[in-house]
Amino acid sequence: MRKLINPPQETWQDLVKRPTKNLEELEPGILETFRLVQEQGDEALRQLAQKHDSVTLDNLVATTVEISQAEAQVPVELKEAILQAYSNIQLFHTQQAEPVKKVETMAGVTCWRKSVAIEKVGLYIPGGTAPLFSTLLMLGVPARIAGCKELVLCTPPSKDGNIHPAILYTASLLGVTRVVKAGGAQAVAALAFGTESVPAVHKIFGPGNQYVTVAKQLVSKAGVAIDLPAGPSEVLVIADASANPAFVAADLLSQAEHGADSQVVLLTSSAEVLEKVEQELQAQLEVLPRKEFAAKALSNSLGVVLGSVDEMLAFSNQYAPEHLILSIQNFEEVLDQITNAGSVFLGNYSPESAGDYASGTNHTLPTNGYARAYSGVSLDSFVKKITFQHITPEGLQHIGKTIETMAAAEGLEAHKNAVSIRLKEVNRV
Amino acid sequence: MRKLINPPQETWQDLVKRPTKNLEELEPGILETFRLVQEQGDEALRQLAQKHDSVTLDNLVATTVEISQAEAQVPVELKEAILQAYSNIQLFHTQQAEPVKKVETMAGVTCWRKSVAIEKVGLYIPGGTAPLFSTLLMLGVPARIAGCKELVLCTPPSKDGNIHPAILYTASLLGVTRVVKAGGAQAVAALAFGTESVPAVHKIFGPGNQYVTVAKQLVSKAGVAIDLPAGPSEVLVIADASANPAFVAADLLSQAEHGADSQVVLLTSSAEVLEKVEQELQAQLEVLPRKEFAAKALSNSLGVVLGSVDEMLAFSNQYAPEHLILSIQNFEEVLDQITNAGSVFLGNYSPESAGDYASGTNHTLPTNGYARAYSGVSLDSFVKKITFQHITPEGLQHIGKTIETMAAAEGLEAHKNAVSIRLKEVNRV
Repeated sequence: MRKLINPPQETWQDLVKRPTKNLEELEPGILETFRLVQEQGDEALRQLAQKHDSVTLDNLVATTVEISQAEAQVPVELKEAILQAYSNIQLFHTQQAEPVKKVETMAGVTCWRKSVAIEKVGLYIPGGTAPLFSTLLMLGVPARIAGCKELVLCTPPSKDGNIHPAILYTASLLGVTRVVKAGGAQAVAALAFGTESVPAVHKIFGPGNQYVTVAKQLVSKAGVAIDLPAGPSEVLVIADASANPAFVAADLLSQAEHGADSQVVLLTSSAEVLEKVEQELQAQLEVLPRKEFAAKALSNSLGVVLGSVDEMLAFSNQYAPEHLILSIQNFEEVLDQITNAGSVFLGNYSPESAGDYASGTNHTLPTNGYARAYSGVSLDSFVKKITFQHITPEGLQHIGKTIETMAAAEGLEAHKNAVSIRLKEVNRV
Repeated sequence: MRKLINPPQETWQDLVKRPTKNLEELEPGILETFRLVQEQGDEALRQLAQKHDSVTLDNLVATTVEISQAEAQVPVELKEAILQAYSNIQLFHTQQAEPVKKVETMAGVTCWRKSVAIEKVGLYIPGGTAPLFSTLLMLGVPARIAGCKELVLCTPPSKDGNIHPAILYTASLLGVTRVVKAGGAQAVAALAFGTESVPAVHKIFGPGNQYVTVAKQLVSKAGVAIDLPAGPSEVLVIADASANPAFVAADLLSQAEHGADSQVVLLTSSAEVLEKVEQELQAQLEVLPRKEFAAKALSNSLGVVLGSVDEMLAFSNQYAPEHLILSIQNFEEVLDQITNAGSVFLGNYSPESAGDYASGTNHTLPTNGYARAYSGVSLDSFVKKITFQHITPEGLQHIGKTIETMAAAEGLEAHKNAVSIRLKEVNRV
């Protein structure tokens, strides 16, 4: 952990910078994958699974038998945990539904907006070291609340062509329409362009490796929406003397274990807390199974002593962390000072892992400073808000002149005429 | 207008396609502009204004004198119209504010989200044939309601280095922080990267020509958010026998006059209406100042006779129009069938130009089929929704095991430990 004591404010701009990674060199290969999938459909998905992952796939789509067998393979305790998390996520995201409010902006001029589900959505869940059923919950629950008709899940199978039972069980709970055994850029291509087995979707969600990240960027240029631009996961902890160093260290490590490129920042007004947290980090690190990842992430991390809570919040806002933990006294008093963050955890008993799994908030959040302009995934991410308006003949008499004057001033006579021709008829009657 | 009578449903997929434009060839030139602006700042903006538009700019930023003089140059009638539109847009967008709702998902586990303004936003208003003060209102009013601190307007000046008084007057009403005389890709670069005169912003809004469109795409890859992917403007009108052909023609023309690439579609269940609309189009077209644009757009447009309102709605949903006008009887009964559209205008007295200027809804809307996954600009576009959570020691006792079980099943021991270490302390007390 790189340590800094009261770094002057003009140096913060450099301190808050994330390491940039140029992924443009991946683009040609990914575009080639896109071409293959567009030309050969399912056959390309099979070939690429064989080539990259040495998996022979007879069926690209998980069968109902596979899905129903999965349930028996998930331990009861895990099923209960998944159901509890499902319930909390559902409760929190249901509250995000916007009721239709009709607004009469002038007499006879009524406007409203209505949330309408995105019809077809694609959920990408990476394979690799951990079966991320929690991410499937975070995407699938709001998709279901929104009323999306097709939920297409793509996830890479293991070498034997199977998908982890906890993923299949969760998919089944969510009523996922189709579970496709495909990963990487080819999965993104299949979701964007469609194949015989994979329906093309309108928006693609979910994390992934750098190939998936670039593939999502590229299909978003081609008109398919994506959830968020991606980057390595991050946490920033603000701790005063009231913080518990063991808890703070545990939170930093829970971020650091994600991967070597995870971003971990500790801001504290107490040099003593910094020192104790470092001791705790060493002690807790030793017993972690993912110790190597965590150690590497920690070696790139930042521990900063600053003079006051105000300064720490100013630094944090400039950093715009994905996760922000406030381990300070009287955190209620400073909430309005938080301007840039993805999700905020308050006090000593709100660990980030609560939000990662089960408290109800979404864990798909803006990284890499995107929290300055982006929100995390929510129910909003699965709907379009369509505006409607109805104007009565009397309403048009009230608003007509305003429209005519503005259209004429912009030199758009046909816009003006669409009002004038109606007003002429209304006034004649 | 290309006419089709009851085209079979399998042909719709081709009919709803917009002409694609490959803009990739513009990228190298735009990246070169970015480099110039990043290296030379204001000086690059001056040079490029001289080179591309033959404008010599002493001051890049409009002075307070210029702004205060503008007010006197705007006719009283136009000022009143702008104020009326402002008031309606404000009324409608204020209603979109989301109140904070605290949700206790389990006893002692409280989650909520809060809308927080994007601190710095850039508004791009194109120059060219029309001074689009209406677009400035559509972007500036929600930015103000959201509480954005910096509103930076970029708009190209006329040959004499001035900005249209109606733009300056509107900017002044909105309390725009800075009015910068810059257009094209260089303006987008200045907003994204900052110069001596232009603060870097977190999100860029507004329409523009193909250089601006591509520049916005490119900066969005570099981490600056943008409002919407752009394309030519569109309207789709659904008309039954109750429609007024003169009104329908006026609406189609108000879209067609935007530019030669505007997309105009008429669906009708009545061959007679189609014929009469065509006659009206010819008659009304003759007297339009922007006749050439409109005639060209109409020549690429589509008039389709379909058997029923259900069929017309199905076609429209597949097309996903930016603007949808329902000139049919009993439109109330079919509103739930509309799944893809930007903004919907109901009945014979709700012309699209009402929403373009003054009814209160936003006119920055998804084109090119993006309405399948995107919403138009709204108050939401100017805020991030940050989630918060507070868990009490008792709350952690309720939710702890769920988190531990899920984290362990995903192989993330440090995530589990962040809970266990706290529970151990809670249970000890």
